[in-house]
Parts: sequence; structure tokens; C-alpha cells
Amino acid sequence: MNVRIVLVGTTHPGNIGAAARAMKNMGLGLLTLVRPKYFPHEDATARASGAEDILESAIVVDPLEDALADCTWVAGASARSRTIGWPSMAPRECAGRLLAESVEGTAAVVFGPEKSGLTNEDLDRCHALLTIPTVPGFSSLNLAMAVQVICYELRVAGMDQYAAGSNTSGHDDAVRLATGAEMEHFYEHLESTLIRSGFLDPENPRHLMRRLRRLFARAVPDQNEVNILRGILASLEPGAKD
Amino acid sequence: MNVRIVLVGTTHPGNIGAAARAMKNMGLGLLTLVRPKYFPHEDATARASGAEDILESAIVVDPLEDALADCTWVAGASARSRTIGWPSMAPRECAGRLLAESVEGTAAVVFGPEKSGLTNEDLDRCHALLTIPTVPGFSSLNLAMAVQVICYELRVAGMDQYAAGSNTSGHDDAVRLATGAEMEHFYEHLESTLIRSGFLDPENPRHLMRRLRRLFARAVPDQNEVNILRGILASLEPGAKD
Repeated sequence: MNVRIVLVGTTHPGNIGAAARAMKNMGLGLLTLVRPKYFPHEDATARASGAEDILESAIVVDPLEDALADCTWVAGASARSRTIGWPSMAPRECAGRLLAESVEGTAAVVFGPEKSGLTNEDLDRCHALLTIPTVPGFSSLNLAMAVQVICYELRVAGMDQYAAGSNTSGHDDAVRLATGAEMEHFYEHLESTLIRSGFLDPENPRHLMRRLRRLFARAVPDQNEVNILRGILASLEPGAKD
Repeated sequence: MNVRIVLVGTTHPGNIGAAARAMKNMGLGLLTLVRPKYFPHEDATARASGAEDILESAIVVDPLEDALADCTWVAGASARSRTIGWPSMAPRECAGRLLAESVEGTAAVVFGPEKSGLTNEDLDRCHALLTIPTVPGFSSLNLAMAVQVICYELRVAGMDQYAAGSNTSGHDDAVRLATGAEMEHFYEHLESTLIRSGFLDPENPRHLMRRLRRLFARAVPDQNEVNILRGILASLEPGAKD
């Protein structure tokens, strides 16, 4: 993915390593450091834990301008609101824009020093502010965490079939779901068992079967599961062990 | 927000502090630690940087069951795919569900130890897997980073008022969902009944109870439904009508 992460004036080298790891987890590889206080540094290497290749290929420059010379679209991370209003984007919107811009050129996200953030002069080189939503009054996101959030959103934006890949049904893919007819047979079996056990009074059924149908409908059982449930009913059938 | 973060067997106390900071940034406050290797610890306090109140109010328990006893819906973070498929959710979907479930009860997200992750036995207490999308081949997200991602999505979901007005759970609003403790009692009752009926061979249990847990976890039963199920078990108990 042609999106560069640019860290300006980072004071804690551990954050550089953690940012590299976050980038690599999410499929990003281009890291540029502007005036890092300490780099390379053992804390950066330790926190990278597996993403040392990103640290090794990181480019160190000064000033920020050099990091952005070939970039076509740049977002600057900012927790603070600014007197002069830049366009401000939430991470999801910003990731979509970065991805779109990176198709034709190189896009970048710039993060300032831990304590102070980017200066207005830094932001002058950006096309938009990236603002990560936080709780008012406790908005000082850790630098590497902020990198993680935008890299995560870039990953989500980049996954073409984001939703298609997830298994939301909770079923083994190989097993087909129970059909309506199979569920009806199960409910008949359940009902007759409950009548024989005395739990369901056919003269006064109230809404028992409807309640049980709702419960099992929410679970959307597969074929195996319906077989297990019917096996259980058979084993519990009054008289089964007589 | 009534969503609890549960960290199981955390080995690096710095991760606990970083997780607390991530939580506070995003408006979460409920932290439970299960068998932390070191806690309290100076590294946790250092990395919390402003979120010490969350560390101070954190609850330390053992076993995991105690952390989930009052929870009505639980997601377990997992990078690995599992042989027996739990329902798997991406962070965005999972956050929406957690938020919706937290309206009626207490929802939780559970994270395992840094190296090994959650065991299958831990996941038996979860309704779904939370799987954060990463690059294949470099999927070992730092623990606190994983907490950051889901807390971020919870914040976004909360701001979108995702759950506002919608009843996605399919439950009667008036009835509260079964807690973890109530479900455990039900499973114990079910298991002992199946052993007595001969359906479950304790010498060769295979994955029967795990399969049944998955089935009922998908349904997310409410209190009335668990009472009905236990009434059914009692009525079918071998010997109940003798």
C-alpha cells in the first residue's frame, strides 16, 4: 500500500518501534522519520518485535518538507482543534481518501511529537487534519496507538471483500444449515417429547413452543446440531431407559 | 459505556497500563484482570499516563469465570483460526454488537496472554470471536494495540449511535439476558442430565458440550428462556416420572 507514515520529532524511540509493528500488522511498509530524538535505538527494536525490517528501511530526513516532496496527498494528525480551520477528517474517511489518492501517487499521514503535536507550519503542508475521536478531556492518544488506528482503518479500507471474508454466522463452512423442514421435524419431536414428559400441557400450551422456536431460530442450527438435539431428545424420551 | 475489558494472564504490565490509557481515551472504564503476572506494577502506571484511575479501579480475579459471571454477551479476541468454528466478527461488527448488548446487560471483550492467546476453554465462555484484520503472516498484534482497535470502534459506534432505537438482539426488551453464571448453571444441568441419560459418555465426551455451548451461545438466551430450558431438563430427567 502506497501510504507513508511520517513521524516528526518523536522523543520516545519505543513509539517508533511500536508504530513499525502496527504498520506491518496492517500491511504498510513506508516509514519516514523527521528529526527523531533517538534512532536507531534498542527501545525501538524491542517494541518492533518482528517489524525490524520496517525500521531498517526507514528513511530519516530533515525538514518535514523532504519527507513529503513526492507526496500527492497528506493528512496531518491532530488532537487539538486549530484556530485556523483545516478540513478535519475522522480516521475512516481519511483512510478512504488516503487509499484513493495512493492509487495515482503517494499519500502520507504525518504525526507530530508526543507532547506537542504538529505545529501550524507542519500542518501547512497537509491537505487535511486527521482527528481520531476521543473522549473530551482525555484526548492524548499515545503516538503509536494513533498510528495503529489509522493503519487499521487503512487495512479495512484496503480489504476489498472486508465483510465477505468474515464468518458471522458462526457455523463451520462445510456443514449446511438445517432446512425449514428439518427444523419442523425437530420442533414436532421436541413438542411430543415435552407433552409426554408432562412439561407441556396440550390443553394449556401457552406460548411455550413459540418461545422455543424463537430461541432456536436465533441460533440458526446447522444439520449436525439438529441431529445432536434430536439424539438428546431420543435419549431423554420418557421410558427410553426403562 | 457498559462494556468491560478483560485481560487474561497478561505477562507484561506495561500492556495493562497502555490498555487502560486506550480505554480511557475512548470512554471505557471497566477493566478486569485475570491472573496478571505482575499487578500493580510501575510499568503499568507509567504507560497508563493519565489513566491511573482505571488501574486503581481494576478488579483482579481468578478464574475467568468470575470476570464474566454477570456478563450477558462476551467476545473473545483471537488471531488464530480455530478447529471448531466460533462465530467470528471483525472489530466494527463486534463493536456494534457489544454496544447493542450493553444496553440490556453487561458486555465484555476478553484478551488472552501475549504469547499464547485465549485457550479453547476460555473461548467456551464467549459468544463470538473478535478477529482483527491483519496481514497474513504477521498477525501478532500487540495486546494493547488490539485493545485500542476495539475501543476505537466502540467509540465510533457509540458516536454513530449505532444501537439507538434498533433492537438487533431479537429479545423482549423487558426481560434481561441470562448472565454468564446462569448459563454455566444451565450447562452443568444439561451435562449431568445427558450423562445420566447415557447420551454423553464422560469417558469419551468428544466435543459434545462445546458444540452445545456454541449453539446456545448463538441464541443468547434470556432469563425466562434459561428457566424454560432448565424446566424441560428437570421434566426429562431420567426417572422424573417413575
